[in-house]
Amino acid sequence: MKSKVITPLEEDYSQWYIDIVTKAQLADYAPVKGCMVIRPRGYAIWEKIQATLDRMFKETGHKNAYFPLFIPASFLEKEADHIEGFAPQCAVVTQGGGKKLEEPLIVRPTSETIIWSMYGKWIKSWRDLPILINQWANIVRWEMRTRLFLRTTEFLWQEGHTAHATEAEAETEALKMLEVYKTFAENYMAMPVVAGQKTESEKFAGAVRTYSIEAMMKDRKALQAGTSHNLGQNFAKAFNVTFQDKDGELKYVYASSWGVSTRLIGALIMVHSDNKGLVLPPLLASTELVIVPIWKSEEEKAVVLEWVYKLHKMLKDDFSVELDIRDEYTPGWKFAEWELLGIPIRVEIGPKDIQKEAVVLVRRDTGEKEICPLKEILPKVRETLKNIQSSLYDKALRFREENTFYLNNYKDFLELFESKGGFVKAYWCGDEKCEKEVQEETKVSIRCIPFEQPQGKGVCIKCGRKATLQVLFAKSY
Amino acid sequence: MKSKVITPLEEDYSQWYIDIVTKAQLADYAPVKGCMVIRPRGYAIWEKIQATLDRMFKETGHKNAYFPLFIPASFLEKEADHIEGFAPQCAVVTQGGGKKLEEPLIVRPTSETIIWSMYGKWIKSWRDLPILINQWANIVRWEMRTRLFLRTTEFLWQEGHTAHATEAEAETEALKMLEVYKTFAENYMAMPVVAGQKTESEKFAGAVRTYSIEAMMKDRKALQAGTSHNLGQNFAKAFNVTFQDKDGELKYVYASSWGVSTRLIGALIMVHSDNKGLVLPPLLASTELVIVPIWKSEEEKAVVLEWVYKLHKMLKDDFSVELDIRDEYTPGWKFAEWELLGIPIRVEIGPKDIQKEAVVLVRRDTGEKEICPLKEILPKVRETLKNIQSSLYDKALRFREENTFYLNNYKDFLELFESKGGFVKAYWCGDEKCEKEVQEETKVSIRCIPFEQPQGKGVCIKCGRKATLQVLFAKSY
Repeated sequence: MKSKVITPLEEDYSQWYIDIVTKAQLADYAPVKGCMVIRPRGYAIWEKIQATLDRMFKETGHKNAYFPLFIPASFLEKEADHIEGFAPQCAVVTQGGGKKLEEPLIVRPTSETIIWSMYGKWIKSWRDLPILINQWANIVRWEMRTRLFLRTTEFLWQEGHTAHATEAEAETEALKMLEVYKTFAENYMAMPVVAGQKTESEKFAGAVRTYSIEAMMKDRKALQAGTSHNLGQNFAKAFNVTFQDKDGELKYVYASSWGVSTRLIGALIMVHSDNKGLVLPPLLASTELVIVPIWKSEEEKAVVLEWVYKLHKMLKDDFSVELDIRDEYTPGWKFAEWELLGIPIRVEIGPKDIQKEAVVLVRRDTGEKEICPLKEILPKVRETLKNIQSSLYDKALRFREENTFYLNNYKDFLELFESKGGFVKAYWCGDEKCEKEVQEETKVSIRCIPFEQPQGKGVCIKCGRKATLQVLFAKSY
Repeated sequence: MKSKVITPLEEDYSQWYIDIVTKAQLADYAPVKGCMVIRPRGYAIWEKIQATLDRMFKETGHKNAYFPLFIPASFLEKEADHIEGFAPQCAVVTQGGGKKLEEPLIVRPTSETIIWSMYGKWIKSWRDLPILINQWANIVRWEMRTRLFLRTTEFLWQEGHTAHATEAEAETEALKMLEVYKTFAENYMAMPVVAGQKTESEKFAGAVRTYSIEAMMKDRKALQAGTSHNLGQNFAKAFNVTFQDKDGELKYVYASSWGVSTRLIGALIMVHSDNKGLVLPPLLASTELVIVPIWKSEEEKAVVLEWVYKLHKMLKDDFSVELDIRDEYTPGWKFAEWELLGIPIRVEIGPKDIQKEAVVLVRRDTGEKEICPLKEILPKVRETLKNIQSSLYDKALRFREENTFYLNNYKDFLELFESKGGFVKAYWCGDEKCEKEVQEETKVSIRCIPFEQPQGKGVCIKCGRKATLQVLFAKSY
């Protein structure tokens, strides 16, 4: 059982996180530096995330497509900010089929350039617009310091790339998709997020405006959980993508792009898990409940198993259930194992329960036990899953609120981040100099300018000048 | 409309195929040589294929995972046959993060080596077996002569990789998954296949035995539509993957692997399509029917549209329906467009139909028209889709049977392949020399040794010696 023990969060937060990822068998280190293997229990979470988001994308009119992994090096250079941002992170293919390539190929770090080169072929007239395409793909960004799920050289993501006739449409699209991400984060991941706009210095390389959702992890740091960009005409101009508008004029196309990645699995872990292991919101758990039978003698075993199979049959059409009838482990060992793996509900059934025609339901998130008569099991499980989902959200929101501070002087700000840290909402004058100085002095950055702004005005937390923007400061991943 | 015209199959088969792929907007050429862009209409077919196979894999106990894109060059070299087979096709990353890499990385051409390096970490005891993992991923094999979907430098596929305690289990798994592929090809793709074993010279680089399913395309050539391999202990030995068995002994693990790819989309096209464009089996069509209204005046339009919306509402919960109410195109133009795109059923509705409270159903595969009273539409559409699915299969099977020849002398064999070609079932002595000579002289190869063998014996088609194996000869993709 030693291999199942998780380093306590209070003792070593980083080790706690890595312990959960590796011991709950979500991911493992690959032989290539910075790369990860997503194991079946981790990938099952990604499949749930994918299925849910894919449905939401389709409901908002998007279709999936697939663009090539390799991008000619010259493409990346066509948009000046874009190449500046991504050049240091590129993996480069220089040989193919036993020969040196004439032009090196970049393994995609993001697909704007390759996609806009194709949009140039496909878009001629206003009739061809909008194009609303999404892609599920792997991405490579060479990273020096990596952490499983949070920052890896290769990761999985989706990237939406849309083309529009007007700037207003592109802006609406970027905001709409950020709203989709927010809904997904809050309703499915049970993770409250702050939605807002990135500052100029934090925006995507090639964007006019970048929006993000930011969530608080258990170490009170912020994790950027999804971004959406209004790209203006930058890529259309770089790839000369024009359309003939209704008025007969030739115009450049407007663009948006937006993405979330396997990083969300890291966020899920760091928002809900505890010292016993993974805690999963039921809506993203591929197994909702596990049945663990209890017996002491062979005689008891025969009786209990009969009930266990009956129970399994009752549940399996409505819920995803695992049945743990392994003989080589004790019930106690199994309890710990399933807690580590984050299954939302454990159903215990032993001889005493059978006498009462009942089972014991144990909630993974709170540890609460409840005796449930067999005939009430279906509605009870349904209700309990719903309660777990909403109480995980409530708990995460409470934690964030308890650790969000409204500060108006830099001394308090410094003190806070020298001690436990958190989210700080404070006014900022809008000057990049102040933003940069704060970051250099404290490693705290402006995560976003939240859409929700208070009525009043204030003074810049750094320089003391009058300011109208309240921004979200935090240390981040 | 010129851009919608397909080169007739009888005139130029290759151009016919490319016309369908590009004009039905299934795929397009990427800027990188040999790579393709899978457009939304093509990707929708892949999503249907994926969803169906994924369900079948899960029903047979498999789970999905994800392994890295990059494989250290040294890994590929550990299995001698494997590196010999794949070395000429590799794309090599030599730079990352602005620096030359110490060890070049291969972009995966298949994942046996990276996966077995991980299985070595995970497998200790018989309790850890079997491992039944599948991966959906992109793959790169540097190809000189490429064709959209059929052979491209990058393609999408799934690869199953399983680990077992015994040789018998690995063999059972390889055969079981070939059967899954056969069921999928026949029941969903409506594509009859011949299942069998590959000869020694045609087997996978690193396999003990390779099995495949082979389908006949409209040019009478064979397309290998899926393969499954019993890998024996080859990869376990290369990566030193052992387990402690129940008897306490340390043994090497047995392996299987199996895969199908986006090539299946190419097969679908070449089995069913015609000179009007794509023909899709309903079970793989993301749009099952399209409603095209007919009107001549604004007055008629108002009445027809009212009925069209009513009809759409009646159908949309049970079927995936598109509604084509575009004003800028005539009904005739739309008919041709939807035929090109392969929508299985077209529903026409005009003023005369409305008077009779009926619609006209037009089958894409046969062109048959049928008047259907509105109140019978649901069962009628359901029945018609079912009929299309089965008659596509029957038609493809008939075509294959008409073009399969049982030959016993090499003169007839040569004559056949000098004229129209086809599948030849003939005896083979088992000698690689005969196999090789036939291939060199005629470009015809042994596609597989079918599982279904006749009772009798015969003489080798090439050398005339006594032979017991009847094999499938064909030209192939």
